[in-house]
Amino acid sequence: MNAHGNRSPIIAVAMGDPAGISPELTAKLTALDEVRSSARLVVIGDRRVFDEGARVAGIRPDLKTVMPDADPRSIGAGAVFVDLANLDQASIERGVASQAGGAFALANYRHALTLARDGHADAVCFTPFNKKAMRLARSGYDDEIAFSAEVVGLQTPASEFNVLDKLWNARVTSHIALKDVPSQLSFERIHRALKLTDACMRRAGFSKPRIAVAGLNPHAGDGGNFGREEIDIIAPAVMAGREQGIAAEGPFPADTVFLRVKNAAFDAVLTMYHDQGQIAMKLMGFDRGVTLLGGFPFPICTPAHGTAYDIAGEGIASVGATRAAALLAAEMAVASPVHRRPDIAD
Amino acid sequence: MNAHGNRSPIIAVAMGDPAGISPELTAKLTALDEVRSSARLVVIGDRRVFDEGARVAGIRPDLKTVMPDADPRSIGAGAVFVDLANLDQASIERGVASQAGGAFALANYRHALTLARDGHADAVCFTPFNKKAMRLARSGYDDEIAFSAEVVGLQTPASEFNVLDKLWNARVTSHIALKDVPSQLSFERIHRALKLTDACMRRAGFSKPRIAVAGLNPHAGDGGNFGREEIDIIAPAVMAGREQGIAAEGPFPADTVFLRVKNAAFDAVLTMYHDQGQIAMKLMGFDRGVTLLGGFPFPICTPAHGTAYDIAGEGIASVGATRAAALLAAEMAVASPVHRRPDIAD
Repeated sequence: MNAHGNRSPIIAVAMGDPAGISPELTAKLTALDEVRSSARLVVIGDRRVFDEGARVAGIRPDLKTVMPDADPRSIGAGAVFVDLANLDQASIERGVASQAGGAFALANYRHALTLARDGHADAVCFTPFNKKAMRLARSGYDDEIAFSAEVVGLQTPASEFNVLDKLWNARVTSHIALKDVPSQLSFERIHRALKLTDACMRRAGFSKPRIAVAGLNPHAGDGGNFGREEIDIIAPAVMAGREQGIAAEGPFPADTVFLRVKNAAFDAVLTMYHDQGQIAMKLMGFDRGVTLLGGFPFPICTPAHGTAYDIAGEGIASVGATRAAALLAAEMAVASPVHRRPDIAD
Repeated sequence: MNAHGNRSPIIAVAMGDPAGISPELTAKLTALDEVRSSARLVVIGDRRVFDEGARVAGIRPDLKTVMPDADPRSIGAGAVFVDLANLDQASIERGVASQAGGAFALANYRHALTLARDGHADAVCFTPFNKKAMRLARSGYDDEIAFSAEVVGLQTPASEFNVLDKLWNARVTSHIALKDVPSQLSFERIHRALKLTDACMRRAGFSKPRIAVAGLNPHAGDGGNFGREEIDIIAPAVMAGREQGIAAEGPFPADTVFLRVKNAAFDAVLTMYHDQGQIAMKLMGFDRGVTLLGGFPFPICTPAHGTAYDIAGEGIASVGATRAAALLAAEMAVASPVHRRPDIAD
């Protein structure tokens, strides 16, 4: 039961870039019993593109097409297809990023976000986007967070989380030049990221997530010998979080913090910059993992890997990360029903 | 045969910090047939401390004590002990960093470096130092490179390499604050580090080491969107290296470059800063690995792990990394006999 009295949460699934493995993955996802028993899927895209994906996947799709204005809450089946009829499969060249492909993915994603924003869905998933295609379709397209915040009208902080098996990785700064990282870090930003991480993980069902906080400098500054951010801003932010009941520890040296996690002492690592977490997560197999946009009133999940143009159309793409994305979205929607905002007031 | 016409290279082995596992590891090393058949060991320290290490290790030492002024080149046996008689075992408290322990390690190391500098040994190894003890013994002690360069009189660039199994990791900057990394990077420094890496690896027996160069920024700058160092200085340094016959490629995004290496496409990764390499190497098991000081006229190797005060005296320390350090030193001494300087002229 979800907050609306229905049997299972509704996930709006936006079809991603059509030139790669996204159509195949979308089709494979709808055929997974485990997913269909955990959520009702409302797949959004073009039925012709989806059907071609199903053909590639070797799947006979078991979902009816409904009108774009149908109310998903009335859906009884495990999955339905909302046909926006917005892309002719014949116009797509496999393995090539195109304006049409980007526009297709954006339209599907916008529709999915709108459904969730308006309370017609409990979570959003999408199969991989291609950044080049997105930029062709929308100049200045930066990342999913900015676009989603615009569609949803989010005014509060949002952040990308990487989830691999049960390990979460959040970061204080992300897609900025390394030279700008130190000046972007502050007590306030680190503290805010810590609270956002804690709040999102509680929404995902962790009663008191244990968060390891990485330092910025080699050896976490070696007592101030190689930089003072640990002493001046990171340790104080950890202490402030602890005083608010967050199970945070650190700062730990970045080169051993993930070893601590592997020993299961922590549920999450909060890193200071992009590669600090990504180097570790990718080595640990993050391509199997899930990217979660946190801080929105509903979960938004996508597989961590990309569009894999090199194997498009071959039917060999693994659905594992897409499956994990849908299951995490469903779990979070159940643990924390739609439109309950995370407690992230500063 | 080495350059001096003797049977196998001579490694001067300095006993490290006496309060941790170093005495046990030194004793265990001298008992390894594989090491004794690859090199002649000249162990430097205090015989009482060594004998206690042997007792902890459960080893009956098979090496004679010789006078500090004995010529190692005249040694016939697989191992001898040079007794500096510089530390009473009874004065050492296990698990505690002390001025006396640091002074002991420094004296042993200085003696080993001097032997190699003066042509009496072909390589140097040392069991782990404790940085706190080193600083108590010598205020301002920074790292092994600075100390070694001073003793050896090295004027040319030197750098720390991390070697795990057959993978090498070198870095352009090391123990500095992250905020200082971008300003410390330049075409010249990256190019010099690339040449030093290539030269050291050739000395270690790689005929044409394949070196992957990491970018600095997330996604290697994403074509200039997140920083321009890749375009402005790293790619040009890689090109300059290639024009000189170095098998370098890159810059690659830091979060996937180690995955490329795992697929065995490269022998080494040159990283821009400390944690970029250390996060990956430690996750890959670098505690089993070797730290090599490169750029000296002879190899200097040590296990990558530390003094492990928590298990001092228990006899359970793994000799694996120390063994790997000695074998790498022996290999390099054979591949490139002592006093042939690497070709690293700018």
